[in-house]
Amino acid sequence: MSYLTSGYRQSVEKVLNEALFAVEYDEMVIVKDIELYSLCEHHLLPFFGKCHVGYLPRNKVIGLSKIPRIVDIFARRLQVQERLTQQIAETIRDAIKPRGVAVIIEAKHLCMMMRGVQKRNANMVTSAMLGKFRDDQRSRSEFLNLVGSQ
Amino acid sequence: MSYLTSGYRQSVEKVLNEALFAVEYDEMVIVKDIELYSLCEHHLLPFFGKCHVGYLPRNKVIGLSKIPRIVDIFARRLQVQERLTQQIAETIRDAIKPRGVAVIIEAKHLCMMMRGVQKRNANMVTSAMLGKFRDDQRSRSEFLNLVGSQ
Amino acid sequence: MSYLTSGYRQSVEKVLNEALFAVEYDEMVIVKDIELYSLCEHHLLPFFGKCHVGYLPRNKVIGLSKIPRIVDIFARRLQVQERLTQQIAETIRDAIKPRGVAVIIEAKHLCMMMRGVQKRNANMVTSAMLGKFRDDQRSRSEFLNLVGSQ
Amino acid sequence: MSYLTSGYRQSVEKVLNEALFAVEYDEMVIVKDIELYSLCEHHLLPFFGKCHVGYLPRNKVIGLSKIPRIVDIFARRLQVQERLTQQIAETIRDAIKPRGVAVIIEAKHLCMMMRGVQKRNANMVTSAMLGKFRDDQRSRSEFLNLVGSQ
Amino acid sequence: MSYLTSGYRQSVEKVLNEALFAVEYDEMVIVKDIELYSLCEHHLLPFFGKCHVGYLPRNKVIGLSKIPRIVDIFARRLQVQERLTQQIAETIRDAIKPRGVAVIIEAKHLCMMMRGVQKRNANMVTSAMLGKFRDDQRSRSEFLNLVGSQ
Amino acid sequence: MSYLTSGYRQSVEKVLNEALFAVEYDEMVIVKDIELYSLCEHHLLPFFGKCHVGYLPRNKVIGLSKIPRIVDIFARRLQVQERLTQQIAETIRDAIKPRGVAVIIEAKHLCMMMRGVQKRNANMVTSAMLGKFRDDQRSRSEFLNLVGSQ
Amino acid sequence: MSYLTSGYRQSVEKVLNEALFAVEYDEMVIVKDIELYSLCEHHLLPFFGKCHVGYLPRNKVIGLSKIPRIVDIFARRLQVQERLTQQIAETIRDAIKPRGVAVIIEAKHLCMMMRGVQKRNANMVTSAMLGKFRDDQRSRSEFLNLVGSQ
Amino acid sequence: MSYLTSGYRQSVEKVLNEALFAVEYDEMVIVKDIELYSLCEHHLLPFFGKCHVGYLPRNKVIGLSKIPRIVDIFARRLQVQERLTQQIAETIRDAIKPRGVAVIIEAKHLCMMMRGVQKRNANMVTSAMLGKFRDDQRSRSEFLNLVGSQ
Amino acid sequence: MSYLTSGYRQSVEKVLNEALFAVEYDEMVIVKDIELYSLCEHHLLPFFGKCHVGYLPRNKVIGLSKIPRIVDIFARRLQVQERLTQQIAETIRDAIKPRGVAVIIEAKHLCMMMRGVQKRNANMVTSAMLGKFRDDQRSRSEFLNLVGSQ
Amino acid sequence: MSYLTSGYRQSVEKVLNEALFAVEYDEMVIVKDIELYSLCEHHLLPFFGKCHVGYLPRNKVIGLSKIPRIVDIFARRLQVQERLTQQIAETIRDAIKPRGVAVIIEAKHLCMMMRGVQKRNANMVTSAMLGKFRDDQRSRSEFLNLVGSQ
Repeated sequence: MSYLTSGYRQSVEKVLNEALFAVEYDEMVIVKDIELYSLCEHHLLPFFGKCHVGYLPRNKVIGLSKIPRIVDIFARRLQVQERLTQQIAETIRDAIKPRGVAVIIEAKHLCMMMRGVQKRNANMVTSAMLGKFRDDQRSRSEFLNLVGSQ
Repeated sequence: MSYLTSGYRQSVEKVLNEALFAVEYDEMVIVKDIELYSLCEHHLLPFFGKCHVGYLPRNKVIGLSKIPRIVDIFARRLQVQERLTQQIAETIRDAIKPRGVAVIIEAKHLCMMMRGVQKRNANMVTSAMLGKFRDDQRSRSEFLNLVGSQ
Repeated sequence: MSYLTSGYRQSVEKVLNEALFAVEYDEMVIVKDIELYSLCEHHLLPFFGKCHVGYLPRNKVIGLSKIPRIVDIFARRLQVQERLTQQIAETIRDAIKPRGVAVIIEAKHLCMMMRGVQKRNANMVTSAMLGKFRDDQRSRSEFLNLVGSQ
Repeated sequence: MSYLTSGYRQSVEKVLNEALFAVEYDEMVIVKDIELYSLCEHHLLPFFGKCHVGYLPRNKVIGLSKIPRIVDIFARRLQVQERLTQQIAETIRDAIKPRGVAVIIEAKHLCMMMRGVQKRNANMVTSAMLGKFRDDQRSRSEFLNLVGSQ
Repeated sequence: MSYLTSGYRQSVEKVLNEALFAVEYDEMVIVKDIELYSLCEHHLLPFFGKCHVGYLPRNKVIGLSKIPRIVDIFARRLQVQERLTQQIAETIRDAIKPRGVAVIIEAKHLCMMMRGVQKRNANMVTSAMLGKFRDDQRSRSEFLNLVGSQ
Repeated sequence: MSYLTSGYRQSVEKVLNEALFAVEYDEMVIVKDIELYSLCEHHLLPFFGKCHVGYLPRNKVIGLSKIPRIVDIFARRLQVQERLTQQIAETIRDAIKPRGVAVIIEAKHLCMMMRGVQKRNANMVTSAMLGKFRDDQRSRSEFLNLVGSQ
Repeated sequence: MSYLTSGYRQSVEKVLNEALFAVEYDEMVIVKDIELYSLCEHHLLPFFGKCHVGYLPRNKVIGLSKIPRIVDIFARRLQVQERLTQQIAETIRDAIKPRGVAVIIEAKHLCMMMRGVQKRNANMVTSAMLGKFRDDQRSRSEFLNLVGSQ
Repeated sequence: MSYLTSGYRQSVEKVLNEALFAVEYDEMVIVKDIELYSLCEHHLLPFFGKCHVGYLPRNKVIGLSKIPRIVDIFARRLQVQERLTQQIAETIRDAIKPRGVAVIIEAKHLCMMMRGVQKRNANMVTSAMLGKFRDDQRSRSEFLNLVGSQ
Repeated sequence: MSYLTSGYRQSVEKVLNEALFAVEYDEMVIVKDIELYSLCEHHLLPFFGKCHVGYLPRNKVIGLSKIPRIVDIFARRLQVQERLTQQIAETIRDAIKPRGVAVIIEAKHLCMMMRGVQKRNANMVTSAMLGKFRDDQRSRSEFLNLVGSQ
Repeated sequence: MSYLTSGYRQSVEKVLNEALFAVEYDEMVIVKDIELYSLCEHHLLPFFGKCHVGYLPRNKVIGLSKIPRIVDIFARRLQVQERLTQQIAETIRDAIKPRGVAVIIEAKHLCMMMRGVQKRNANMVTSAMLGKFRDDQRSRSEFLNLVGSQ
């Protein structure tokens, strides 16, 4: 249990400060299919699935391996999926001030799989789109397209 | 039989009242691949498949596990697929006044599989799009996109 | 042989008259992946594949199991695929005056598979788009999208 | 070797003249997944893959089985993939004056698979879009959509 | 190790000069699913995946087998994925002055797979879009479409 | 309903008498993946799946298309899966006195899918092995092997 | 939580007594791919997967839908997978005295997926073979064969 | 039609005489997944599928490309699948006197797919095992194993 | 690097001592599809794949989550695959004195993927079979069977 | 061409001498799914596929990456598949005197794919089994089993 909620004791700032770089690259950067395990704060039952993160850099990029770290820091807490999605997006926005951030989470919830309704395959999908991903349909659909390609 | 039509004896209000929350989250919420079993009112033969539900919240969200419950309440009745799709969408619209609701049902009908025409793989697809999903092509196609991704 | 051309002796009117209903539902209705077997009128060799039918109702809907019946009535004749596609679409248009009808047929032709050219996997795709599906790009691409999703 | 270059000795005119018909059908006609084998004129090594052909008829259609024949006549020569794609499209355009012709070829080249670079799975994709497929984004993307659906 | 960084000792000019041809073909040319192995300059651990390259020719084309060669020359160095993507695109742009160049790389990084975060399936996706692929949404999405089709 | 139980009104003798032939062939004959729809006599709910039939001929064979007919005659009755399996095997044994008959049925039961236990993917497998398939392990496992191969 | 351990309050005897029938059928009966959710008694974290049950009847059979019920009664308790497998097998043996019972469980454990070792895809497989399945290699391997076939 | 029965006019002897070689190799040789198209002599409707051929050489082998030729010569006639299987095996046995010959044919019959019974996916499997494949269980099951592996 | 060789600093005894239990269960226990990352001691390049572990308990079992831990302790060292396989098997044998232990490792080696030979898909398979798995063909093939089933 | 036949100029001895090690490991070692490209000596057309190699060591093992090297040395010559299979097996036998060597090659031949018979998917399978793999059914089938597992 203390493991499952270890996110509370980790510092995003510490993780990120070591890994921000100035760059000339301004195309979309995506890290997709990040495995995600979290704990639903209503039923204390796990939910798990995958998370896709994209951003449009402005001057600074994040070291690649830090993005799954950020996902983990917020997932290792008592969560609801909507809030978790939002927190990941906002953390990246605050850290590197990109032109836009997009996060999609698709997860199965054991509370839905194991209890009353017994719907094994149902998936919950949530997204958070900030900056250019919110305003510009083309960035938004290009992100969906690249994330969906196999 | 009494099990298959148990939906008549369940109250949507009771299910929902316990699980509406005020939130700040306004991106699309989707619960997809909900298994669905119902009974065709013409032939009293089952139809089954999956249901995808999405909505664009305005102030209030529904507890995640309630959405499959609503689907079940209306499916456990004598139905036609077009009406079932519409009822699920309208119930969610009335309960949380979202900016939009989208429901897609894709189902195989045993009346089509087992009787005269003997077409095993045919699927019927119906949809109900309310509010922003009806008027705004972008919300509509983003929903289709997220539901179709694997 | 008399079985394979039994479509000539069946009446569309008789099939449809029993199964038209007035409804309030106006979203797209799709029956997809209908198996189809027909006979090419040039070589008297079979072609087979699947047919997708969609329509946008206006007041009236067709009973679900009638759509594969209509497909069969026209397929059980000597045909060319282009004409078959058109006939199915026009029959539905005439019967329920919908806002639009869309039919896609994707088939393998034994004349192409077995004879000279010996191209086993080639598929012929034809479509017929009437009414709103002809004029309105959005209805057309939503139909393609829902038919292609798995 | 004489077999592999037999295309030089075949006449497109002879193949086509027997199989052009006047029709009333004006929707897109597609023959997809035609197997293709050809010989790269630089290395004399084979390349093979599949070819998709579509056209928008104007008065005349081509008999279905002639399209793989045309593909074969041009493939059974020393070729480069770009030129092969163009030749197939232009031959169909000249024969039936359609409103548009689209050809896509996707092929693996043994010169790329077997020699220095040793990249087994790399595919070369080329296309030729004439008439309405060149000018009209909607025809173009509908063709891509129908060809890509399974 | 000297093998893994052999790219430093290879000359792009030498590779390309032998294989530029004047042509009349102006449709998009794509070489997709090129296998790629490189070495991350931060951790000296490999990353590997696939690279898709497309360009819109203007007068000149590159011999097909040279494109995987260019990918290899830049991959066989100490790299970061964003820079690698950019270098491939700029090299092709400078060599044949096409109307546009598009490069997408999708790769798994062993630093992410094997170390702390232990996320096996996460993929990093980067792209570089120059010329017409940067400015024109239709070229961009047609490239994504053709690369994603199977 | 009268359709679903039409098997009671069909005569196996009549179906088979027209289609028994004397032959010199003595290797195993298999018809696999026959679609099967039946009605569970306890709950009056459908079960459906596939049936594999094999036999080792002795002098006589059955016309190929008669085997699915026999399966249908017994399936279109109120049944339990164990008995259905046995009846198909015994009918073939009595009709052609083969050296052995093997029948496997693998089916999903809507009573199990839709009611209390709600186990969607559970399959019931039953088999009936007569004559040489009962006594001889090699015939038995060769049948399983050929039926399972794709 | 009371839902997840509801198995303690259910009576196997009551479930089974209503559904034992005398029969003449003596071939192997299998119910495979039964979904299973349970709770690991060490970490109070869920494990889930599928269960395959087979038996060789002697006089008595169990009503088909009771087998998933028995699986559920023992799974809805605090368990270890080895014991759960054994309990299901012994309950069926005691209830119908068959010639043999075989149970295989294949499950993912969230304690293994979410904690220290973080091995997402690892599966634990356990089996319990009683009576003829324990002594007779042929029954044992026929069961494995039928359970593994798709 | 004359194409479909062209097998009558081809000479096996002529095909084989050019391509028998003396060798020192005595392990099993297999050519698998040979496409096969034939015509059912009862209904004059096509059947098609794949054929696997194996033999255990004794002194002589057949040129690789001759085996599909032999399959074609016998398939391009009016056939029943049992006889076709036997003829291919006996022709190879007579030509090279191997220690054993094995032939498996798995085919879909349009008479079964298109007519009364309408069972689309049913496949007929026949085999002919001569010499060592008939007597020796190990050769037989090694052949099945290698043919079934992907 | 210190992370990749962290196995040297971990104690198997410490991991195992906390998690050995006396039990009455004597059927095969399998943990399959354990992800594995290691470092080849010849080239200092990673190899990765999956590991399957099975044992036949005698009195004692190992806590489920310890088996992937043991795999990790030996993988996080400079290794050759043959020795790694052997070490895992021997550690389990020494810890719980089971009637038998079986370990299979299937891995891709970056030294083979990235260097001279450039064979991307080649996999190395090694196994270690101790006790009953070494002597008894039936235990051995049952283990292979259960590990290979999906 | 000189590239395709470069095998003639490479020395097996030189490759192997650097990479033979004395070991204590005596279980089967397999390298599977090695890509293979060769040139048919009759038609000078390529054939390509995959090769699986296994051996039972006695004192000495071969460095892992040498096995694909040996395959390449013999494949980069004018070959027939039967001889190629035999040469690889004999080379390994002579080099390390193992208790047994097994080689399976499964390949598509462009002479069969592109010429007269036009059978695209046909595969030729050959094997060479030396020492214990020839005499001992269990080693032989364990090899087939491990090679076929995914």
